[in-house]
Amino acid sequence: MPLDTASGAFAIAPTPFHPDGRIDYDSIDRLGDFYREVGCTGVTVLGIMGEAPKLDGEEAVEVATRFIRASQGLAVVVGVSAPGFASMRGLARKAMEAGAAGVMIAPPPSLRTDDQIVTYFRQASEAIGPDVPWVLQDYPLTLSVVMTPAVIRRIFAENPSCLMLKHEDWPGLEKISALRAFQADGSLRPISILTGNGALFLDFEMERGADGAMTGYAFPEMLVDVVRLQKEGRRDAAHDLFDAHLPLVRYEQQQGVGLAVRKYVLARRGLLASDAQRKPGPVLSDRAKAEVEYLLSRVARVDRRAAISPQLARAS
Amino acid sequence: MPLDTASGAFAIAPTPFHPDGRIDYDSIDRLGDFYREVGCTGVTVLGIMGEAPKLDGEEAVEVATRFIRASQGLAVVVGVSAPGFASMRGLARKAMEAGAAGVMIAPPPSLRTDDQIVTYFRQASEAIGPDVPWVLQDYPLTLSVVMTPAVIRRIFAENPSCLMLKHEDWPGLEKISALRAFQADGSLRPISILTGNGALFLDFEMERGADGAMTGYAFPEMLVDVVRLQKEGRRDAAHDLFDAHLPLVRYEQQQGVGLAVRKYVLARRGLLASDAQRKPGPVLSDRAKAEVEYLLSRVARVDRRAAISPQLARAS
Amino acid sequence: MPLDTASGAFAIAPTPFHPDGRIDYDSIDRLGDFYREVGCTGVTVLGIMGEAPKLDGEEAVEVATRFIRASQGLAVVVGVSAPGFASMRGLARKAMEAGAAGVMIAPPPSLRTDDQIVTYFRQASEAIGPDVPWVLQDYPLTLSVVMTPAVIRRIFAENPSCLMLKHEDWPGLEKISALRAFQADGSLRPISILTGNGALFLDFEMERGADGAMTGYAFPEMLVDVVRLQKEGRRDAAHDLFDAHLPLVRYEQQQGVGLAVRKYVLARRGLLASDAQRKPGPVLSDRAKAEVEYLLSRVARVDRRAAISPQLARAS
Amino acid sequence: MPLDTASGAFAIAPTPFHPDGRIDYDSIDRLGDFYREVGCTGVTVLGIMGEAPKLDGEEAVEVATRFIRASQGLAVVVGVSAPGFASMRGLARKAMEAGAAGVMIAPPPSLRTDDQIVTYFRQASEAIGPDVPWVLQDYPLTLSVVMTPAVIRRIFAENPSCLMLKHEDWPGLEKISALRAFQADGSLRPISILTGNGALFLDFEMERGADGAMTGYAFPEMLVDVVRLQKEGRRDAAHDLFDAHLPLVRYEQQQGVGLAVRKYVLARRGLLASDAQRKPGPVLSDRAKAEVEYLLSRVARVDRRAAISPQLARAS
Repeated sequence: MPLDTASGAFAIAPTPFHPDGRIDYDSIDRLGDFYREVGCTGVTVLGIMGEAPKLDGEEAVEVATRFIRASQGLAVVVGVSAPGFASMRGLARKAMEAGAAGVMIAPPPSLRTDDQIVTYFRQASEAIGPDVPWVLQDYPLTLSVVMTPAVIRRIFAENPSCLMLKHEDWPGLEKISALRAFQADGSLRPISILTGNGALFLDFEMERGADGAMTGYAFPEMLVDVVRLQKEGRRDAAHDLFDAHLPLVRYEQQQGVGLAVRKYVLARRGLLASDAQRKPGPVLSDRAKAEVEYLLSRVARVDRRAAISPQLARAS
Repeated sequence: MPLDTASGAFAIAPTPFHPDGRIDYDSIDRLGDFYREVGCTGVTVLGIMGEAPKLDGEEAVEVATRFIRASQGLAVVVGVSAPGFASMRGLARKAMEAGAAGVMIAPPPSLRTDDQIVTYFRQASEAIGPDVPWVLQDYPLTLSVVMTPAVIRRIFAENPSCLMLKHEDWPGLEKISALRAFQADGSLRPISILTGNGALFLDFEMERGADGAMTGYAFPEMLVDVVRLQKEGRRDAAHDLFDAHLPLVRYEQQQGVGLAVRKYVLARRGLLASDAQRKPGPVLSDRAKAEVEYLLSRVARVDRRAAISPQLARAS
Repeated sequence: MPLDTASGAFAIAPTPFHPDGRIDYDSIDRLGDFYREVGCTGVTVLGIMGEAPKLDGEEAVEVATRFIRASQGLAVVVGVSAPGFASMRGLARKAMEAGAAGVMIAPPPSLRTDDQIVTYFRQASEAIGPDVPWVLQDYPLTLSVVMTPAVIRRIFAENPSCLMLKHEDWPGLEKISALRAFQADGSLRPISILTGNGALFLDFEMERGADGAMTGYAFPEMLVDVVRLQKEGRRDAAHDLFDAHLPLVRYEQQQGVGLAVRKYVLARRGLLASDAQRKPGPVLSDRAKAEVEYLLSRVARVDRRAAISPQLARAS
Repeated sequence: MPLDTASGAFAIAPTPFHPDGRIDYDSIDRLGDFYREVGCTGVTVLGIMGEAPKLDGEEAVEVATRFIRASQGLAVVVGVSAPGFASMRGLARKAMEAGAAGVMIAPPPSLRTDDQIVTYFRQASEAIGPDVPWVLQDYPLTLSVVMTPAVIRRIFAENPSCLMLKHEDWPGLEKISALRAFQADGSLRPISILTGNGALFLDFEMERGADGAMTGYAFPEMLVDVVRLQKEGRRDAAHDLFDAHLPLVRYEQQQGVGLAVRKYVLARRGLLASDAQRKPGPVLSDRAKAEVEYLLSRVARVDRRAAISPQLARAS
């Protein structure tokens, strides 16, 4: 599946670690199987939530390669954002050799003006090479770089190898509408728009024209289903399922502890052997774990997939 | 009600404007009646969501005074954050003369170190005068000033007239637990903690020890009820009501357009004559209004107060 | 002198305070006389260095009015930057009524994209009224808003009442060259460019095409002379004088204590009755004062105007 | 020379590149010889000015190793700041094996509270291992992390392997005095304080108690001499030499183009084969080059070492 026509749910995968900080490759394999089985169309690795900056260069290649192998049949996008182009290029080319569908690039927080942003992505695209398909990550809340729809259009116009937008502006509904309007008036070529933000607005993002979701919510099944239901025109059903998960989606969305919650849930689901993060990383308090369990029990009233029997749990 | 023992729901009031930018005093009166009737214990005016920076000095005093008069029986907190202490003191003293219960102070974004933060609030407290009760606003997401629980404890220890914490750190559940633990070990005197963040975490904040909510959600009735239900120990009922509103709470939480959504809903409820904001302010698209209407109809399935008959609507 | 043809040195005036925080109007009068006598063509009041945010609305009008009266014959620019347009308009119109030559507007730090910046200044210009001449302040180092030369050109094109650029980008030499090139190719109308940054680059800014200086260095005589010498084509003489002052210019340039140094020197020169700042403000240590005295003695070897006899000193 | 008793001038070395972006190892050798010949006591490589983020992991090790070999007899400090501890540890240990005297660590810009800062450096110190001597970099202007003197004291108290402070707070004179006062009262153990900021305040920093300079000014001879003169108590002579260089020091200090100026001058001095930077990097305009030449000619009137005969020049 070429990235510019991609749709559905791309799961953002966490990087699994053992409690001592070593990479847990078995859990990578388990995640790959899981994402395929639940109907994801893609997997994104080494993103911000993937603790990518905590890996050194060789580890990053190994994790990406293992995920690619484990996710046969799915499109794998590898985050290659780096402070410099040398590291970015190195990882991008090794990822493509290993079979990635493309790479993802976020802007460095220092960019301010429209021209600075456009220039950066032109140089990044040149650095990785024109043959490497890439995803533009638009994430102002965390990166503090604000791209207008017109700037995004310029980036796509200048870089034929840029095929997909990972949209997580906030608020971003009007931005999706603006980009689709650009396509309607012929000023923007077809691109895929997958939305992030922990899925907090996925229900309406689909109605505004998103092609799917790319985020790390611990129940990618919900992402798959909401995307599908909205495409089938079953609006109320989509919202009903979404709303049932929203309290947990919202809880995961907390900056700082969100990843800890996700790893905890994925460990409770038997997918990760441990919910460990590499340092520096927050630890989930017992109180917080109990809150997550309560939320899971409430989600399970509507969606049985959230009914996790304690026996399955491997974590903490 | 002295602020250090305050609980329940403090509604953060928007400042009503006519479409031409003049202040709409009749809507202030209507809001005051409304907040009292639905069971709020307090009202907060001239907060960040109150478009306070768009008022000049005299207007600020007039708006605060009118709200105080309109909200008889409720504790009114007046936001007095200002770039300088002269303006802060002027507004604070006029607000107290008009009958305010206290004032609220947020830190300027330039503060970085623990000592800078503590020093600032000591000077602010001196500036407004030791007889003026005040609320400490802790809002890192917007203000980029991060206060540890220990710094908050220092501020309360140094300033006897600081009586309440408006808590909107994100994530902030552990911070509430830490502050309540300080009180348990005797290192922090009794204070009131009301939580903000658009109520996005109110369900669990109450369980962690918050005394209530201080936020601008367009259905303060929900805040009143969730606070009450949690205090009565009716956890599931509290979450059931909260979850029914969460899709709209979440929609309002969007930075940038949140206030537009709130004003739209309050206008639809017949409380504001217009949903106008002073410039610069975003305008809600027709698409967004339709989304809000859809959300209202879904909330109304559980909470009939969200069933707004079109006849009532005054806005747009 | 209309602002768009202004040149020479505009002194940025500090706001004089008594040690107890009251405004010191006598020192305002003394400063006005002084600036005129040393050959300044203008005075800028209520700028960032003027402690403007520490004044309330009425005080700001009084300070501006007094400076305008005290500076007969000079063009007075009044800083009107404010969090909201109501306050900005109020001060701008009162300043113009009192006889100001124009007002100065800086962008709020939250602006990011080119369009946000352009939109803000269009709205600000509308708010103060099309009859009020204004100066665009470009100061990324402190305000974190970055305007490209093309964005500056858009602002001047959209707003006929914008007549002057206060340039203090850093580094900014190429920006001056770019703007002058725009004028050479006819895409930018004639504007005045005065440079700030504490005069740290004034020597070369003049060679790149600046019309003069607008900054608060405690020896505006040097600004006047360097501008004049450069206009006369006496490059080496301009640099010789500039270099003699540079150690002190550099010392004043320290963020945080720069204003304290300036007020100390102006008090030592007998112009301010006190070097007091309103809180919060740093206090100059004895060690720092001794360093300033040493610098003054070194400047005085070349420029006798820096030879301040101790008898003249009023401060500390 | 152990780092905690280090003094004199540590030159911050640029990373030399060929015009096509390859690393220029011959110029590294030439720089090493040069720094030793002019009397530097140390060399710092892979700092912010060393374009470190533009190197990939292997290149960083190669550059550090080559500099260590080329700088026999000098203490070499290797910048190891990295987004994650895995990369930091890897580079630190390889640098020490290659013969580095220690490593330098800057705080990531996201740190805010005192505790966050202290915790980060504790974890970083653990990550590189307790046997690796390290230098604490305090650089708020660029990194936006503000450390009070008390926080710096905590970091040194907690981490016995932290031996030196690279001081480039701005303004920072009082900070040096505060740290030396801590040592006088016994609350801080002996440490070396070398100052950065492009040497803009070196004259007074030495008088406040700094042990020397660590910065990249293109005439490290001046740093060596000013440090020596101040230690000999020859205050006026130190300032005379410093002031002669200050116009160029100031010109180099421009954020964004400072490195381009330094590389240009080092190339003009025959030390770098090319003044090329890896992308993204600014290019010095012809106008700027002419300004630098003019400044060099003026410095040369006092310090003959700045009289660079055109024949020597290799660059541009």
